[in-house]
Amino acid sequence: MKSGIVLLFLVLMACLTTFGQKKQSPKGDEKGLIKVSVMYPAGEGKTFNMEYYETKHMPMVAGLLGSNLVKYTIEKGLASGIPNQPLPYVAIGIFYVKNLADYQASIAPNRDAIRADIANYTNIAPVILVSEVVK
Amino acid sequence: MKSGIVLLFLVLMACLTTFGQKKQSPKGDEKGLIKVSVMYPAGEGKTFNMEYYETKHMPMVAGLLGSNLVKYTIEKGLASGIPNQPLPYVAIGIFYVKNLADYQASIAPNRDAIRADIANYTNIAPVILVSEVVK
Repeated sequence: MKSGIVLLFLVLMACLTTFGQKKQSPKGDEKGLIKVSVMYPAGEGKTFNMEYYETKHMPMVAGLLGSNLVKYTIEKGLASGIPNQPLPYVAIGIFYVKNLADYQASIAPNRDAIRADIANYTNIAPVILVSEVVK
Repeated sequence: MKSGIVLLFLVLMACLTTFGQKKQSPKGDEKGLIKVSVMYPAGEGKTFNMEYYETKHMPMVAGLLGSNLVKYTIEKGLASGIPNQPLPYVAIGIFYVKNLADYQASIAPNRDAIRADIANYTNIAPVILVSEVVK
């Protein structure tokens, strides 16, 4: 009986931990977060090395952001969603952060290193949008 | 002892259910999904009614997509991430779908109704990017 109670207690603890994790990260719950979207416009003569971007550049920048970074994503442009329109962007990297001021404070002292690394994977000058997830 | 075992069984079932749900929706697991990003460029004289967009337009379009739609998000543009550059987009609505062909098949017969509704919240012609989440 005693070992049964101990086992029950352990299982309950595991459950509580699991429920706790679920609460903090339900599917698609990005509401209220700040998104920093780094968008690379398509165009003639533009090049982009996705492998370098995914394995070197994005992890390097993400590593500067500490616990302010909730997640980051990378997407590859496929087409315009409007028939007969050119592809708008070849790639987009997105950092989801809790706080814009902390993001800026992390990036500012490393701006030169980040810019220097961009030449390693693309000749495109990115457009950067700071936005707030409202839904 | 018997009631202890029954309780233990119930707690275990609850745990398994919870773990099962977690597996299907881990945080940020959008990899492999298709994103359709509808981006509204900022500019002089441009207007955008976020409340209408969030409560009427996006739910209407999302409702057309059925089980192909994994989630949709809405963001509000705050600033350019590059100093002294203008805000690129006032708003972006994003549909995360499993399959582009099914998305197009759902939208095509409703294109006129969707376009007609755009005039209810903005005078901006959106840029639309179809992309694949690679990370």
